[in-house]
Amino acid sequence: MRILYLGDVMGRAGRRAIAEGLGPLKQRLGVDFTIVNGENASGGMGLTGAHARLILEAGADCVTLGDHAFDQKEMLSFIETEPRIIRPLNFSKAAPGRGARVFEATRGRKVLVAQILGQVFMKRPFDDPFSAIEAVLKSHPLGGLVQASVVDIHAEATSEKMAVGHFCDGRASLVVGTHTHVPTADTMILSRGTGYQSDAGMCGDYDSVIGMDKAEPLRRFLTGMASERFTPAEGPATLCGVLVTTDDRTGKAVEIQPVREGGRLIASPA
Amino acid sequence: MRILYLGDVMGRAGRRAIAEGLGPLKQRLGVDFTIVNGENASGGMGLTGAHARLILEAGADCVTLGDHAFDQKEMLSFIETEPRIIRPLNFSKAAPGRGARVFEATRGRKVLVAQILGQVFMKRPFDDPFSAIEAVLKSHPLGGLVQASVVDIHAEATSEKMAVGHFCDGRASLVVGTHTHVPTADTMILSRGTGYQSDAGMCGDYDSVIGMDKAEPLRRFLTGMASERFTPAEGPATLCGVLVTTDDRTGKAVEIQPVREGGRLIASPA
Amino acid sequence: MRILYLGDVMGRAGRRAIAEGLGPLKQRLGVDFTIVNGENASGGMGLTGAHARLILEAGADCVTLGDHAFDQKEMLSFIETEPRIIRPLNFSKAAPGRGARVFEATRGRKVLVAQILGQVFMKRPFDDPFSAIEAVLKSHPLGGLVQASVVDIHAEATSEKMAVGHFCDGRASLVVGTHTHVPTADTMILSRGTGYQSDAGMCGDYDSVIGMDKAEPLRRFLTGMASERFTPAEGPATLCGVLVTTDDRTGKAVEIQPVREGGRLIASPA
Amino acid sequence: MRILYLGDVMGRAGRRAIAEGLGPLKQRLGVDFTIVNGENASGGMGLTGAHARLILEAGADCVTLGDHAFDQKEMLSFIETEPRIIRPLNFSKAAPGRGARVFEATRGRKVLVAQILGQVFMKRPFDDPFSAIEAVLKSHPLGGLVQASVVDIHAEATSEKMAVGHFCDGRASLVVGTHTHVPTADTMILSRGTGYQSDAGMCGDYDSVIGMDKAEPLRRFLTGMASERFTPAEGPATLCGVLVTTDDRTGKAVEIQPVREGGRLIASPA
Ligand SMILES: [Fe+2]
Ligand SMILES: [Fe+2]
Ligand SMILES: [Fe+2]
Ligand SMILES: [Fe+2]
Ligand SMILES: [Fe+2]
Ligand SMILES: [Fe+2]
Ligand SMILES: [Fe+2]
Ligand SMILES: [Fe+2]
Repeated sequence: MRILYLGDVMGRAGRRAIAEGLGPLKQRLGVDFTIVNGENASGGMGLTGAHARLILEAGADCVTLGDHAFDQKEMLSFIETEPRIIRPLNFSKAAPGRGARVFEATRGRKVLVAQILGQVFMKRPFDDPFSAIEAVLKSHPLGGLVQASVVDIHAEATSEKMAVGHFCDGRASLVVGTHTHVPTADTMILSRGTGYQSDAGMCGDYDSVIGMDKAEPLRRFLTGMASERFTPAEGPATLCGVLVTTDDRTGKAVEIQPVREGGRLIASPA
Repeated sequence: MRILYLGDVMGRAGRRAIAEGLGPLKQRLGVDFTIVNGENASGGMGLTGAHARLILEAGADCVTLGDHAFDQKEMLSFIETEPRIIRPLNFSKAAPGRGARVFEATRGRKVLVAQILGQVFMKRPFDDPFSAIEAVLKSHPLGGLVQASVVDIHAEATSEKMAVGHFCDGRASLVVGTHTHVPTADTMILSRGTGYQSDAGMCGDYDSVIGMDKAEPLRRFLTGMASERFTPAEGPATLCGVLVTTDDRTGKAVEIQPVREGGRLIASPA
Repeated sequence: MRILYLGDVMGRAGRRAIAEGLGPLKQRLGVDFTIVNGENASGGMGLTGAHARLILEAGADCVTLGDHAFDQKEMLSFIETEPRIIRPLNFSKAAPGRGARVFEATRGRKVLVAQILGQVFMKRPFDDPFSAIEAVLKSHPLGGLVQASVVDIHAEATSEKMAVGHFCDGRASLVVGTHTHVPTADTMILSRGTGYQSDAGMCGDYDSVIGMDKAEPLRRFLTGMASERFTPAEGPATLCGVLVTTDDRTGKAVEIQPVREGGRLIASPA
Repeated sequence: MRILYLGDVMGRAGRRAIAEGLGPLKQRLGVDFTIVNGENASGGMGLTGAHARLILEAGADCVTLGDHAFDQKEMLSFIETEPRIIRPLNFSKAAPGRGARVFEATRGRKVLVAQILGQVFMKRPFDDPFSAIEAVLKSHPLGGLVQASVVDIHAEATSEKMAVGHFCDGRASLVVGTHTHVPTADTMILSRGTGYQSDAGMCGDYDSVIGMDKAEPLRRFLTGMASERFTPAEGPATLCGVLVTTDDRTGKAVEIQPVREGGRLIASPA
């Protein structure tokens, strides 16, 4: 099965690239199941119901969130009405929605998607992601009721992300990081068969500071003071992520490749 | 001019890859000037004089350090005897050594190398890197006494690194990040001509947690307690970094490409 | 009932003050139940079995720990043999020992003691303390099986400590902070009857940097580099904490006063 | 000379206590020079010109700020017109205003006031406070052109505050902390004659979470999400700080006592 994971959609530039580019990309890559991180799709902060629908209609089978999950307050109720949206398992005990769910891919195959938040260098504290993902992986063994499983580790620190990768190795089809908004070039298959990339990168304009228009971030770094609000950069976006091919019987990764398309970054090798 | 920058050399695996691989790599890529980050070459923590010599003899023209600059106490005196080693400009007012220096590349061309530490998500506090690098860039304009300049932003946060990139854009030949030990895939030339990559990645074994043997980092994440010391992973290392080609007249980047060679990562396109 | 809580015992100076001073202090104050924080009693880092025994023999009915709970590895097994030692409820799912327990005070009265770790500004991440203490307080209502209850919030941030105070207000007899090693002067009874002080302060030598000999902390602040190990300051210690008088029927605080005795700090009013 | 330092004035409750209580308090204590921290006087966030005037008219000779110095944008220009307002020395190189100044106390005596920001556990990074205060103390020796000097260390960590105290010991009349909004009970004279208290505490309503109405902070701790804005608590405020008596000839502290007056905290001993 071919699973496409695209990272944090960043504002209007990211949404446009998804709306226009996701369909053709899936076609060209022969994708069976698509996951898109949407935590920054609305003005760079959170996800509205309308923008969630846009991403789903563009071809995502599942939308994940992150630390910005409920920055748009309407998501607090919308997530209860839309089972294709996942928020981190360890967001907060009081959060609505779910952190893991089994989805259906092409030809009825089952895919588990789960998201966890890191604890290192995050602006707010979250509970232990390792025990949270342990419980989910234990109850959804590969080669049992699910043919594949994907873990989104939404985190800052490369050490924590690599540790999650090894922790899930052999028990998930893909562990992919999000949150830093920069794709990493460490795409690999870990020793027990799990596909891995430390960060998917964002779907956004890379002539920016992590997707935001450069002016205000630079002012804040230089003066230590906020002058204006952050607004997403509006130049052409790069769709960024990873494509993993799994063995339906074992659930393990047999091939993995980075995906970078459009915008300013060097396109991934065809 | 062709400038090669290789990221954090991690322990014995990284040193071996440098000793055996740097010469042939320079040859194949036609490199005029080589910079290697050495802050983790000795047991994963700091750099001894002997290991600094090893890296220089392998072909580095300049060795940069980082937050681990003086983890090996002998570097406090060794750095005063070896002008080819650079420590961060904003390490601490009490630190020995220098944070920027002009080097000679092939055919007598001059290259400025400077290193700064980020302030965001770092384990210790450092002074403002923006004003530190501003002063150095102002006194070393491209196309003046130097034909090229390289800024190593040793930092965790992608936002801070991209902000440094844009801050130096048009004034440096290359801004390259280090410290996360994972290469990023955002290799690009910024709008005013500076080559950029958020992180060079490490020269180390990627079957690890940022270069360290997996067992102890995993135990610490799972139990919250240290059991043993961290030790570098010993598997085959990947040499990771970036190659920038600059215009000797303007000092700007005309071409940039990622470098990944050996070990577990997908090799960079030839 | 009169409950004495003394803060973090710091090294030899703190142990000596406890060994010599706790007995007479209890006598003079007419104490029914005594809790002492021991997380720094052994060289400033953790607690050995021998030092735990010393504190218990000096008159503590219960010893609490903190983020340094298992810095002395022997505590990993010792805590299983000594039920009078409590470690934080939210230390790590893998930690031995317990985070709350019911003790017996004079005349057979029951006292619940529980400890939680804060999440804000701590060097390591811990799980949510609010839901952890909620569960314990719910199953141990005041005026039910326990005549009094004490919550030790081991944390850095005053905001988090005050929030824990209000969260437990009316449901615990005393909420007292530890960890900063400086006593606060905000001793009060909250609006629904819980005694509160943001930090008990340490039992240690205040001519120091939070109990450590001044020289090395100052060197590290000035140079950004470690030169030597930290060692506890050896001057005369101040016993620091709080004394709360509770109503045995309601479990609420009827009186509260700071305790400071010996060493360099101004003694608390008799 | 008798110098009164009062900590962070918190919103309307704090302003009212200053307006009504500072005059009588100065009278009763026989104060020669008064410093008030104003960084939270306006809605809990920053200081407007009008509120600065209110504090000065109530009897402050000098108003210090903190990390919230310019939360009210008008302070960016107001500070240039009002030399009695001091912002931290190490706020940012781009900040307007000054971080240290010599003031005149009763009978023409000179008092240096300087403020520095800590680096540990602060939400934003700041430059090294030790070298910043070193320069100021060196150029303003006690017993020279100034009869007294006061250093406000606006910081979170008790370790950093105590280190600043010892660093300035014998060179300043008083080192007093601000920022945590909780008074500490470690009022003392350090070994070379500098008066010290780790935190002055706030001038605000202590039935709160560091001066803010309890409801929203509690919601955020419990749910991990913001629901509303923070608003200052409106109950009766406690004026909190410290009174130091100095020797005009040596500039050293000869006596020091905490000040707590009104509101919910136990009043300081007369
Ligand atoms: Fe995020
Ligand atoms: Fe994001
Ligand atoms: Fe580093
Ligand atoms: Fe490194
Ligand atoms: Fe602690
Ligand atoms: Fe402690
Ligand atoms: Fe502050
Ligand atoms: Fe404040």
